[in-house]
Amino acid sequence: MSPSRFTDDSVPETGIRKLFTTTGHWQRWLDVEAALALAEADAGVVPPDAAEAIAAAARLEELDKRRIRAGIAATGHPLMPLITELSRVLGDDYGGWVHWGATTQNITQTGDALLLRDAHQRLLALLGRVLAAAGDLAGRGAEMPMAGRTHGQHAVPVTFGFKAAVWIDELLRHVARLRRCEPAVFVAMLGGAVGTHAALGADGPRVQARLAERLGLWPMDVPARSASDGLAEYVCVLAMLGGTGGKIGRELYSLMQTEYGEVLEPALPGDVGSSTMPHKRNPKLSQDMMTISAQIRALVPQALEAMHQDHEADGAYTAMLDDAVGRACVLAGDQLARLAVVLEGLELDPERMRANLDLTGGLIVSEAVMLALGKVIGRQEAHRVVSEAAHRAAAGEGTFAALLDTDPRVTTYLTAGDLAALLDPTRHLGLSAELARAGAQRARAAVQGSWEVSPAASTSAWTSVISSP
Amino acid sequence: MSPSRFTDDSVPETGIRKLFTTTGHWQRWLDVEAALALAEADAGVVPPDAAEAIAAAARLEELDKRRIRAGIAATGHPLMPLITELSRVLGDDYGGWVHWGATTQNITQTGDALLLRDAHQRLLALLGRVLAAAGDLAGRGAEMPMAGRTHGQHAVPVTFGFKAAVWIDELLRHVARLRRCEPAVFVAMLGGAVGTHAALGADGPRVQARLAERLGLWPMDVPARSASDGLAEYVCVLAMLGGTGGKIGRELYSLMQTEYGEVLEPALPGDVGSSTMPHKRNPKLSQDMMTISAQIRALVPQALEAMHQDHEADGAYTAMLDDAVGRACVLAGDQLARLAVVLEGLELDPERMRANLDLTGGLIVSEAVMLALGKVIGRQEAHRVVSEAAHRAAAGEGTFAALLDTDPRVTTYLTAGDLAALLDPTRHLGLSAELARAGAQRARAAVQGSWEVSPAASTSAWTSVISSP
Amino acid sequence: MSPSRFTDDSVPETGIRKLFTTTGHWQRWLDVEAALALAEADAGVVPPDAAEAIAAAARLEELDKRRIRAGIAATGHPLMPLITELSRVLGDDYGGWVHWGATTQNITQTGDALLLRDAHQRLLALLGRVLAAAGDLAGRGAEMPMAGRTHGQHAVPVTFGFKAAVWIDELLRHVARLRRCEPAVFVAMLGGAVGTHAALGADGPRVQARLAERLGLWPMDVPARSASDGLAEYVCVLAMLGGTGGKIGRELYSLMQTEYGEVLEPALPGDVGSSTMPHKRNPKLSQDMMTISAQIRALVPQALEAMHQDHEADGAYTAMLDDAVGRACVLAGDQLARLAVVLEGLELDPERMRANLDLTGGLIVSEAVMLALGKVIGRQEAHRVVSEAAHRAAAGEGTFAALLDTDPRVTTYLTAGDLAALLDPTRHLGLSAELARAGAQRARAAVQGSWEVSPAASTSAWTSVISSP
Amino acid sequence: MSPSRFTDDSVPETGIRKLFTTTGHWQRWLDVEAALALAEADAGVVPPDAAEAIAAAARLEELDKRRIRAGIAATGHPLMPLITELSRVLGDDYGGWVHWGATTQNITQTGDALLLRDAHQRLLALLGRVLAAAGDLAGRGAEMPMAGRTHGQHAVPVTFGFKAAVWIDELLRHVARLRRCEPAVFVAMLGGAVGTHAALGADGPRVQARLAERLGLWPMDVPARSASDGLAEYVCVLAMLGGTGGKIGRELYSLMQTEYGEVLEPALPGDVGSSTMPHKRNPKLSQDMMTISAQIRALVPQALEAMHQDHEADGAYTAMLDDAVGRACVLAGDQLARLAVVLEGLELDPERMRANLDLTGGLIVSEAVMLALGKVIGRQEAHRVVSEAAHRAAAGEGTFAALLDTDPRVTTYLTAGDLAALLDPTRHLGLSAELARAGAQRARAAVQGSWEVSPAASTSAWTSVISSP
Repeated sequence: MSPSRFTDDSVPETGIRKLFTTTGHWQRWLDVEAALALAEADAGVVPPDAAEAIAAAARLEELDKRRIRAGIAATGHPLMPLITELSRVLGDDYGGWVHWGATTQNITQTGDALLLRDAHQRLLALLGRVLAAAGDLAGRGAEMPMAGRTHGQHAVPVTFGFKAAVWIDELLRHVARLRRCEPAVFVAMLGGAVGTHAALGADGPRVQARLAERLGLWPMDVPARSASDGLAEYVCVLAMLGGTGGKIGRELYSLMQTEYGEVLEPALPGDVGSSTMPHKRNPKLSQDMMTISAQIRALVPQALEAMHQDHEADGAYTAMLDDAVGRACVLAGDQLARLAVVLEGLELDPERMRANLDLTGGLIVSEAVMLALGKVIGRQEAHRVVSEAAHRAAAGEGTFAALLDTDPRVTTYLTAGDLAALLDPTRHLGLSAELARAGAQRARAAVQGSWEVSPAASTSAWTSVISSP
Repeated sequence: MSPSRFTDDSVPETGIRKLFTTTGHWQRWLDVEAALALAEADAGVVPPDAAEAIAAAARLEELDKRRIRAGIAATGHPLMPLITELSRVLGDDYGGWVHWGATTQNITQTGDALLLRDAHQRLLALLGRVLAAAGDLAGRGAEMPMAGRTHGQHAVPVTFGFKAAVWIDELLRHVARLRRCEPAVFVAMLGGAVGTHAALGADGPRVQARLAERLGLWPMDVPARSASDGLAEYVCVLAMLGGTGGKIGRELYSLMQTEYGEVLEPALPGDVGSSTMPHKRNPKLSQDMMTISAQIRALVPQALEAMHQDHEADGAYTAMLDDAVGRACVLAGDQLARLAVVLEGLELDPERMRANLDLTGGLIVSEAVMLALGKVIGRQEAHRVVSEAAHRAAAGEGTFAALLDTDPRVTTYLTAGDLAALLDPTRHLGLSAELARAGAQRARAAVQGSWEVSPAASTSAWTSVISSP
Repeated sequence: MSPSRFTDDSVPETGIRKLFTTTGHWQRWLDVEAALALAEADAGVVPPDAAEAIAAAARLEELDKRRIRAGIAATGHPLMPLITELSRVLGDDYGGWVHWGATTQNITQTGDALLLRDAHQRLLALLGRVLAAAGDLAGRGAEMPMAGRTHGQHAVPVTFGFKAAVWIDELLRHVARLRRCEPAVFVAMLGGAVGTHAALGADGPRVQARLAERLGLWPMDVPARSASDGLAEYVCVLAMLGGTGGKIGRELYSLMQTEYGEVLEPALPGDVGSSTMPHKRNPKLSQDMMTISAQIRALVPQALEAMHQDHEADGAYTAMLDDAVGRACVLAGDQLARLAVVLEGLELDPERMRANLDLTGGLIVSEAVMLALGKVIGRQEAHRVVSEAAHRAAAGEGTFAALLDTDPRVTTYLTAGDLAALLDPTRHLGLSAELARAGAQRARAAVQGSWEVSPAASTSAWTSVISSP
Repeated sequence: MSPSRFTDDSVPETGIRKLFTTTGHWQRWLDVEAALALAEADAGVVPPDAAEAIAAAARLEELDKRRIRAGIAATGHPLMPLITELSRVLGDDYGGWVHWGATTQNITQTGDALLLRDAHQRLLALLGRVLAAAGDLAGRGAEMPMAGRTHGQHAVPVTFGFKAAVWIDELLRHVARLRRCEPAVFVAMLGGAVGTHAALGADGPRVQARLAERLGLWPMDVPARSASDGLAEYVCVLAMLGGTGGKIGRELYSLMQTEYGEVLEPALPGDVGSSTMPHKRNPKLSQDMMTISAQIRALVPQALEAMHQDHEADGAYTAMLDDAVGRACVLAGDQLARLAVVLEGLELDPERMRANLDLTGGLIVSEAVMLALGKVIGRQEAHRVVSEAAHRAAAGEGTFAALLDTDPRVTTYLTAGDLAALLDPTRHLGLSAELARAGAQRARAAVQGSWEVSPAASTSAWTSVISSP
């Protein structure tokens, strides 16, 4: 039931929480009123001098916030008191041109898109930091062998760098997803009360296009207020990103277990550990990543339910969607900040990795033995021979190596030297190192690309590095 | 993306949001430290004078909050700086007895149960207000006929009071659910780091029982930190309550539609409506109820996922559960506050209800005609005759009444007077009025029962009124 | 608790349910074994004649299904009995080359991608039918005026075609989303047990590329089994599509309400309606669409939770993801089939639309009056004047038209003729008709594009019509 | 995308899947028609001989299923063809009395409650088996020491039996929850089309009460079709039960990890393990339990959304609820069947548990040292001393024991013998054994109680054993 996390002081502030404040909204709405007036001047709908005056005055620090607050308390309306105050400041000559031809929702929704774009830029920047750190780990760990595990059981060896390459691969796809959402999320809407351009008529699409251009947003083909799919998709993508962050958190939590001891997340400054168990160093940030994953994912049903808008608009659904979007951004930022800190400071223990790799006495490379043997006695027979040795070893009848080394079905074809080489887990890493280095390279290339959100910008920089999807 | 609702100023403050603040937590944790010391004194574990001193000192207003905050910033530990400060204030003689034999989580979890109980009491009080208002509506509308609708189509007449009785029935079951949760939610935990009473040993259960008694909580049979089912259930119950609130909100939204016009939620003070559509009176509070329903329900997957605790405890899951519980309480309060305001001030329009009831020209009572006819010509033949008339009426071949009145298969058995009586929708209300009055009576009786949460209190008062479940 | 829907016989069979049967899986896995052998022959890993023989034999109708089933019952292994039987049929010469260098999961996952692609093609075809029908409706209803509604209240007029254009806009974005997912969903995986290419080594990526090419799939950059994001995204996109289907279903349900009567979904053949209420024609298919929306959306938390794979693979999570994907496809097909039937046969009632449009006596065009008046007396003063008339009309003091017509603040500037024109709701439709026709055109263009899934195909055909995102 | 689980042949069939078939529904609906006729005869509404005849004929094996199927295909109505066929068999004298005064939904919903009660009984029986097995484990493992772990780190020792006692405690609360739901779930509904008793009037409540009595169900206070809370709660409770099953599955999966090796789930007959890794024994059933947990939990948002019924009934929501309930029962059965098999056959490895317990060289009992030292030098100073030794041990400066043994702040107060005793992890188990034995006893007592579902039965047998909640 805590309002915040106890680790908040230990990770960098993302700045996202602050965006979604009342005054944050107000300034963005003023930005839209300014751009609207200018766009309407461009289209000949509003006198240019009025537009200039509005654009100059639409700064929150010039307005009387107390009047705005009093107006909201008196009317319960989110925007009109802001317009009234802006009109008051502008005076009789220009005040009447404020908010011309717009409906409340157009302004607030377009302004909120601006806010969201700011959050999006911050998230992309954090993702860049995470990718850079993951790239470093992929490089550092490219040749660091450890047990690969499936279903919680040792399977076949990997390297730590390979793990990082898997993370990078997944994270790069999320970057692509985030960027592909942009044209449906960062939109300027100016269709009026129901999206038909009733107020501006034939001027509507033109003014909307100019408004979008001035704000660096995409214009809407059909400016319907009931279309929730863009924001719903955005929440889905953040939840997928959160799922990957949670997966990495869980993996690090797992590798930090007392029985594993292969990695250690960086200690938080001054951390006192447990009040009763002074020896403990808990995976607090990794746990945060798992918690936040669940929190973001939980917003998806809410965002998807919000797609069931009634007729031309339904505030009940808009509110559930907006809440989901804002919270998802804050949470995604909190998670990425932790992910960055953890990956940047992650301590690796190659000795412990190596020791664990040897836990099964060679069983982890039984595949290698089976493949070598299969080439001479057939795949199925080889499977039988190796399985037998594996089960006898598990039953305590001898070590896997010794059992193989005394089985004529094996020794007829493989020398002791062959067998020793096959049982060396560091020789059965496949392309772990190559995949790790390629991952490191892709992460670096992605980070060097352009991350600016803009309808005009070319997206070639980031699409090229994300080759697969 | 708004941090709050624009209707917040128009409904009473529930006081729940304020409970879950940092200082709110601190005082409750201090309360537990106080009760712990006294309980341990009762059990002979701690000297009585130390316990008295601790209990006297454990008041946040007596402590130096700056020291506590600095300690948290330096250590990242939620509780230890509070204990340190309490020990400092107590001095050498008694300071060492603070927090004796307890682990951090025991204190914070038990303290949070106290906070939660406060929220619970507020929720029950709000539910009482809602039930009282629903009871009034059931009484006022007991004989107010309107169309009953299934699948969005007129079905058979009901009265408005019957609708309210359905709400009451559902709400009373939620009261029972909330109360049945209590022994698994409002628990005192003192099992130590892993729940084995390792620190206090054989004294553990006894001290825990005394602690529970002093705090008005239930003791835990097995004080395991990994048991999340009690809190998960609490979130589920609040989500069900939220679902009912959302259903009522949706129903009122629906009855307020321009095409219906049967009810009107109370106007908010100073409400200016739409900036571009001055005629509108939007169902803002009903919409809030729908939004909040989705928000609470979205917390359930998070709470249920949190049941997958790892081994003896896993902070990742505790954090997701605590967040879900706290948010669910705040949201449930916000919804109930709106529900109370709306039901208390709901405007009913019996004329419009009656006009809508006549929309189908008697089709809404085709069941009555069919039943009467069925008694003489058989159920299936009656269904055929009435269906034919219904479909011909729908096709514009005449009014339903006229078509029946000229069908010899009908007129052979029913006189024009019979038919007119059968086609009067106010004569086919079944037991609507009786059920409405019974609902009003049950709501009143429930509200008069005792709502105090206490392990010692008898629950007979509230169980008796909730006869069915 | 019903295993199927009672409307199943009334809509076309999608063929998707049948794909996900045991034998459906088996044949696809055999297809992968065949393509694998040929790809390995291309890479010089397997003798060409063995590959040809395997490809020729890998047809389920040539195998002994009883042996396969017995093998599965005896071993509990999903794939090995199939390989054993294929090897048996091939005999000693070639049998040993079956499944060379592959791990079970590689074959089953790649085969399942083939199945899923079949489902995907069927979904796209259904979407094409839906878009065509929606395009027709947009065209037919382009100039059919009706009330636009926000928050359940009449707002400003629209046309029915505008509504259809909003649906088209949203549906086209879903087409784009479905297609953008393809390279991360329809993938060939051949990385072995943990994704390191341990079995095939340096040949691995080359063989995987050839395998992908032969199957018309995309190769994986990092063939990790723990990457769930592609399939998770697919479930998210189907859920968003389901959300739009549910929204349309809800809108039709709403427009079919007795109080609205503006549309009628096509009657199912032989439909007897209610057993007790013979007059009813229920919106069964629209309700199905709402139900299915909830069912698909409910799969998203399951799919997202499945992203938390443990280490290199975890069958618990793979199983939850596969279940979500398969069920989402079946449900999406069921919903689209209903949507197609409903939109193709939807009955529109322009007279009832027009009658409802007049329900408020002109209030629905108060915006038009306000805008006209605002040009002469200022926006805020106009808002005040029109609001007053609106509220007085709502209070029964006269019609909106009469109140305006006798208010000197109005009549000074607007003649009776001006006012009558402004109060004509069919003159305040904005660009409803233009947007409707543009939507119809976009739907037609999209349907004429290419819908073939292939890594080699150009995507220009479908991206060009989806201009905005 | 598999339609079933590969482990299905390895666990006992629960019989629940078969309940929810078309013919399963039909027979239950016939049972309700029979009981309805008899209840109406009791109330003097239907002639006794007609009622007797109906009750005798209402057996599916006596009816012509082809006619019923043809009727459904022709009409799309779920129930009427069944009634028609029953009436046909009864002939003219009695056929007309079938379904007297009832509406379709009353019969199907009451019949489905009977089906659900059958599923419920099977679930309770499975839970009994699980509790018995868990009780055995609690007894067997009561004194089997192992590491207690919090946050993935060794914390304080426990015994395996303590773990089982925690499971039992949680499972017993679920038994109580399942039973407390009964009066709101297993209900007979006979309120007619909208729940007002319009058809039977004043006889309605009496007939409904008799119907309920004859079927062993609870009558509804307000027989509204729009009340979904009972079934929604049932899905929530099954999801909580599923969460506990998933938690146990995860714990066993975790304890089976190569690095842990403390338990082994029973091998499935003939299990061949991996095709490429012959040494593996995967935790298949434990993984199933985790998968199923996610699948059941995913049904909760669907069930809760279904609470938003529209007006007096809305088939869209009823269908989503019914689907969730049926699927949840099947899944809960599948999970409990696996849980029973796993717990009954679980292999424990006390040596490996003991070996892991020693992994930290005594750090796991640092709490014990700290408590002993704290009694003489104060809790905070003791924490400091022990923390230092712990951190130096972690840094490789010596063993924890040696570092303590050479620290004068320790040796001044504790002898080498004291220290050795304190560092023996088997001496710091707290009440693990006592709690384990109490859990075993509670499980046994619960299993011996009565599990019959009946409105008349006393619930004292099961409530007494579930002392805490």
